[in-house]
Amino acid sequence: MLTRLDLFPITARIVGDGASARLQIGGCDLTDLAAQFGTPLYLYDRATLDTAVAAYEGALSAYPGPTGITYAGKAGMNLALAQWAASHALWLDCTGQGEIAVARAAGVDRAQILVHGVNKSPEDLAAAVDAAGVIVVDNLDELQRLIALADDGVALPQLWLRLRPGVAVETHAYRQTGQSDSKFGLSSDEFLAGIRLGQAHDLPLTGLHFHQGSHFHDPAPIGPALDAVLDLLAVVRSETGWTAQHLSPGGGWGVAYHEDDLPQPSVADYVGFISNGLQGGCAKRNLPLPALHVEPGRSLVARAGVALYRVGAVKRTPNRRWLLLDGGMSDNIRPALYGARYSALPVVQPGRSASGSAWLGGPYCESGDVLIQDLPMADVTPGELVAVPASGAYHIAMSSNYNGSLRPAVLWLDQGEAHLIQRRETVADLMRRDLPLP
Amino acid sequence: MLTRLDLFPITARIVGDGASARLQIGGCDLTDLAAQFGTPLYLYDRATLDTAVAAYEGALSAYPGPTGITYAGKAGMNLALAQWAASHALWLDCTGQGEIAVARAAGVDRAQILVHGVNKSPEDLAAAVDAAGVIVVDNLDELQRLIALADDGVALPQLWLRLRPGVAVETHAYRQTGQSDSKFGLSSDEFLAGIRLGQAHDLPLTGLHFHQGSHFHDPAPIGPALDAVLDLLAVVRSETGWTAQHLSPGGGWGVAYHEDDLPQPSVADYVGFISNGLQGGCAKRNLPLPALHVEPGRSLVARAGVALYRVGAVKRTPNRRWLLLDGGMSDNIRPALYGARYSALPVVQPGRSASGSAWLGGPYCESGDVLIQDLPMADVTPGELVAVPASGAYHIAMSSNYNGSLRPAVLWLDQGEAHLIQRRETVADLMRRDLPLP
Repeated sequence: MLTRLDLFPITARIVGDGASARLQIGGCDLTDLAAQFGTPLYLYDRATLDTAVAAYEGALSAYPGPTGITYAGKAGMNLALAQWAASHALWLDCTGQGEIAVARAAGVDRAQILVHGVNKSPEDLAAAVDAAGVIVVDNLDELQRLIALADDGVALPQLWLRLRPGVAVETHAYRQTGQSDSKFGLSSDEFLAGIRLGQAHDLPLTGLHFHQGSHFHDPAPIGPALDAVLDLLAVVRSETGWTAQHLSPGGGWGVAYHEDDLPQPSVADYVGFISNGLQGGCAKRNLPLPALHVEPGRSLVARAGVALYRVGAVKRTPNRRWLLLDGGMSDNIRPALYGARYSALPVVQPGRSASGSAWLGGPYCESGDVLIQDLPMADVTPGELVAVPASGAYHIAMSSNYNGSLRPAVLWLDQGEAHLIQRRETVADLMRRDLPLP
Repeated sequence: MLTRLDLFPITARIVGDGASARLQIGGCDLTDLAAQFGTPLYLYDRATLDTAVAAYEGALSAYPGPTGITYAGKAGMNLALAQWAASHALWLDCTGQGEIAVARAAGVDRAQILVHGVNKSPEDLAAAVDAAGVIVVDNLDELQRLIALADDGVALPQLWLRLRPGVAVETHAYRQTGQSDSKFGLSSDEFLAGIRLGQAHDLPLTGLHFHQGSHFHDPAPIGPALDAVLDLLAVVRSETGWTAQHLSPGGGWGVAYHEDDLPQPSVADYVGFISNGLQGGCAKRNLPLPALHVEPGRSLVARAGVALYRVGAVKRTPNRRWLLLDGGMSDNIRPALYGARYSALPVVQPGRSASGSAWLGGPYCESGDVLIQDLPMADVTPGELVAVPASGAYHIAMSSNYNGSLRPAVLWLDQGEAHLIQRRETVADLMRRDLPLP
């Protein structure tokens, strides 16, 4: 059973007693950070990020072959997070030219830039060919484009083919990707055709990628998918001689967002399941063991992130107590988009007992702009700060300027020091691309 | 019964015959625009915008008192759209400092800048007091803040109080705002208390605002809400002597997004219903007739907008034909967020018969990134352009940089001329706010 504090970064502490008790993260006082940097404010705790990487490293160490951890940048990418990924020698999954440019600016090793995308634009493909170590090829149209580039004398990075395994995991429909009518990847027949094409054109085809969906908590559905993948690899080998040097079952491991959720599922269980399944499956089919890559996003960064808001007004309607915050669906669309359930703590006296249920609404002119519904909450008054845990993945990454909102500042917290890694957006930023009428 | 072409701007034409037939909007060839400005590309047709304003002006002309049309900027605001609103002497509804700054930059008359927001930050309130003609006060906490400013000698703009009428319209729950547990506005008791507070502090309280929700097609639910509002105004008058000089029933009139939708509902019917109801209701209660304000957003701009995408790949899965586009949920979150149903036409030979059903998916690494599901569609091949109608409201306004995507360019189409009003985002823009790790 989780407590609300368990959802926060591993460095979260309640410091002081009684009326002076305050929430601290990464050795930093959240009240002080809000005073210095304003709200809404996003925080990343370095210790929690590093611990998450260590969990993956530890779990992978039992695998007898080479391994790699690829950070799925779509969960949240900026210069500093890309630098952090590089500091741990993580690979970086980039979708398109934008994320590739950030990875390059951060100095990520070319060999460790991996490019995804179901429909890479000509600009995306050019950036990938120019800067990436691996392109994960989604479809045969794309493979033909790469063949055309190779025929023009362009040196291609490694190519992995993305397979649609036809097996889904249990998660929100928006986050399922492995089912047979998913937009992602190749069917088994197309995969085989892709290998033959690659061989005919001497392409550097070295790997297989599949991904079944995001934010799942039970590794079991990976089993049938892995079996299907290895069965296909056995067929491909017997028909073409091709073997996969690299195999990635993608990512998608879940996290805990709310104290009523299951506890943060074990990375060791997840990776162990894949690692054992891959070893057993290869042995059974007499296939050489490929390098094993995993592609975590959310499970690396979600818990490290905290969103800090100030309550501007408290409103009572017939059946609800509203705490109206200074941020909402513009910085976190997940409650509106997926029905995601979050939790929150007041920053001062976080241990206060709940006085009843509260609805935490954002400031935007839209009824869907409700961050948290029906959360047991202490009496919170206008001007107080509330902190929302598990905010490190898919918040800033999906943020907008809806209602003319300015995107929040982002801080890096490390051993009592707070460092600005993304400055707050300004009104000038908002108008930077605008041109007057003729 | 709508045709697909009916969903497009009023200037949409199919020009040429047979294989050379092409879609033209505002006298501009969409193929040429894509070649010159790239895709994804957003287009606003001036003639359609102007015609939408004229419909409101015409419908309001029968009202015997003063009237005002306020463009709800949250539907889509940039410098050019604000200039366009000002050119028609529209009022401009701004939420917060960001939109206020755009309105000022566009030269919108101070008297016609109206500021909304359920939780205006100190910066929002300061910008509103500095630049707006009207602040719509959402709650008593906010009114107390304004009283404190007035007590400090700050000259306040006109204040309207927002009432929560306790009556909802039939629309998506995210777009209902009038129901009794909505986060928006004051209860009747709070409204009366607000008037008394305003009188005690000599505040410039001049109006009442309410809003029941967005994208509804039947004005009937406004009837009971208007009755409730006028009943309250009669009580307020008898208890305090206060009368509303301005009354706004907000906006929210719907549009047609798909050929299976009801035809674009009549603005004359909608405004006539309100205008007649207000005149009858005031006469019955012996209340003076207020100025009538309407606050359309979507119904002014949605149909004027078109999104133009290029198909990068066509993929067949067991039960689906996928057209993979170069834009998706980053520029249009509405299908994923509200389940909104859109339609589309190929730009070349738009009159081709459908060859079956198609799923139009975006390029982003997320299964929810599907713009259109199950749409009868012609055979479309990679490289072709498709145009999505009714894209003028809440697309760009809610757009993000998800997957490192770059937000589209926006053009203004007028009598055969295309003019860039928002330049395409660049990789440099994407990293502009990033700072390195310490």
